Amino acid sequence: MPTVPMVEIHRGPFVESVHSGHAVICDGTGEAVEVWGDQAATVLPRSSAKMLQALPLVSSGAAHAAGLDSARLALACASHQGAPMHMASVQAWLSDIGCTEEDLLCGPQPSRDKDLRFSMIRSGKHPGPVLNNCSGKHAGFLTLARYLKAGPDYVAPDHPVQIACRVAFEEVTGESSAGFGIDGCSAPNFATTMGGMARAMAFFATAHQRSDVQSRSAAVLVSAMMANPVLVAGEGRACTLLMQAASEPVAIKTGAEGYFVAILPARGIGVALKIADGATRASECAMTALLVRLGVLDPALPDVARFLNPPIRNWNGLVTGEIRPVAGLTG
Amino acid sequence: MPTVPMVEIHRGPFVESVHSGHAVICDGTGEAVEVWGDQAATVLPRSSAKMLQALPLVSSGAAHAAGLDSARLALACASHQGAPMHMASVQAWLSDIGCTEEDLLCGPQPSRDKDLRFSMIRSGKHPGPVLNNCSGKHAGFLTLARYLKAGPDYVAPDHPVQIACRVAFEEVTGESSAGFGIDGCSAPNFATTMGGMARAMAFFATAHQRSDVQSRSAAVLVSAMMANPVLVAGEGRACTLLMQAASEPVAIKTGAEGYFVAILPARGIGVALKIADGATRASECAMTALLVRLGVLDPALPDVARFLNPPIRNWNGLVTGEIRPVAGLTG
Repeated sequence: MPTVPMVEIHRGPFVESVHSGHAVICDGTGEAVEVWGDQAATVLPRSSAKMLQALPLVSSGAAHAAGLDSARLALACASHQGAPMHMASVQAWLSDIGCTEEDLLCGPQPSRDKDLRFSMIRSGKHPGPVLNNCSGKHAGFLTLARYLKAGPDYVAPDHPVQIACRVAFEEVTGESSAGFGIDGCSAPNFATTMGGMARAMAFFATAHQRSDVQSRSAAVLVSAMMANPVLVAGEGRACTLLMQAASEPVAIKTGAEGYFVAILPARGIGVALKIADGATRASECAMTALLVRLGVLDPALPDVARFLNPPIRNWNGLVTGEIRPVAGLTG
Repeated sequence: MPTVPMVEIHRGPFVESVHSGHAVICDGTGEAVEVWGDQAATVLPRSSAKMLQALPLVSSGAAHAAGLDSARLALACASHQGAPMHMASVQAWLSDIGCTEEDLLCGPQPSRDKDLRFSMIRSGKHPGPVLNNCSGKHAGFLTLARYLKAGPDYVAPDHPVQIACRVAFEEVTGESSAGFGIDGCSAPNFATTMGGMARAMAFFATAHQRSDVQSRSAAVLVSAMMANPVLVAGEGRACTLLMQAASEPVAIKTGAEGYFVAILPARGIGVALKIADGATRASECAMTALLVRLGVLDPALPDVARFLNPPIRNWNGLVTGEIRPVAGLTG
């Protein structure tokens, strides 16, 4: 699995640490147009696969039957930070489909919204599964499970919801999945190659040009994400800020362990990136660099620079170093 | 800077992420006896250099004049987690040398002790510099600065304290330092090669066999660390638990950005390790593997296994994967 250096951690005059990885840019024909590292490497895309996992929710008709608006579809694709707005939106969604927080199988996660987290600590409240960054995806799974009249254990790999997810996943990646790992939220996370994931992103990026059910479903999800960047992640987060900063509509989605994807509908291209060691500080920097390279992000914008060249500050607030993409990545 | 794979992150049937790095084992002659990666790679050892930074405190006579006991000398070498015992010990030390928390230049850091951190959030208290993981090192710097009748800006690279640190650092690494970066606590952190750091650790490991001032100072610091493993890091932390689990007295010290060192006085050898991407999850695993290889740690002990093969759990507490050293590292 040959990786290539992508991101350097500088401190004073030294390169203190280096992050390597794989990246593939794919066009609408499904072919890779640029590759760093190994496009045949098989990786778990983690939360970068959420749009794929949301496809059956839309293509089945379940989303339409439940009257899901673009905000809820964006939440189905989100790794939100459990801010009050995310919590309230998922709670309302659950209520509308006759479910409660108890039906969510994602497990409890403390809010990443500092004010909410601190206020819960002060009042002695324990986080519930609605605060889990995947609670929107799980509300989508529940919506589909109810629509299919399937059982409550919707994360079981042989549950109709997960079978539908795998079928959709393999269709848009253009590959048989080599299998799955269990994700942070207990749902199966299907594996694919870097090339397969970039191909899936290109499928999403060109979906609005086609009229088949899967493509129309993909286009609806991309539109929902682009219309609701704050729901997809949250205030201050890379996905949200980079979508807002882009010079054309794009959908960008992080995943655990250094995964990151981008969908560029105006150009019909998709991007998949994996930092081999799993570091988010590097995946954010490298994805920003690739989008600068593609001309979608302006490196002079503060919300781009904060991910492209984030300063490293110490406990006194002094800048002691910087995160930088390697020269070959930006241009 | 060729690195070698050292640690794998497994999820289900997949290797999801990989960490590479450098490691050097050095004997008392100052020669490398085993090398992974590049022993000539120049790296900032970060907090793994704290014993080197504490040498002038002892060799100058300042520690003796201030009546520092082994607990305070261990704190001078510590990256403690700001638990109440660490806070109280550093506060008492500051008071005994006529200083207050205001004299510490390390900056404020929230306690890593969850009970204390949550209780401070509940009572609206802000962390001060005494909770900084480096506050013991800074109390040592202050003690030396007072003894030398030098000014209060003891982290300035041209301050007598830092000049003394650099002289000691270069002596025990056996190399001229290529320069420094500013550390998380604002003190200079001097660079050395992997081989230089392993040589320094071997100097510490053999120090009790010699009678020169630098060696006697090094031996006193190693003894202090070995006698106070809970002060060096804290409850549940790798340095503390691995020192307690070892079958012979050893001193083990983590550093930021994936650095880790070990001193084995009974064998007269030193170990230096750097995970190239800076991940602590990997440096803890790899250092444990090296100490298992050397026969100092028993992999069957729970407190060893928790760092050698830590399970990865998800938000429901399910084991979804595992961290593993590569086969070549353990034996």
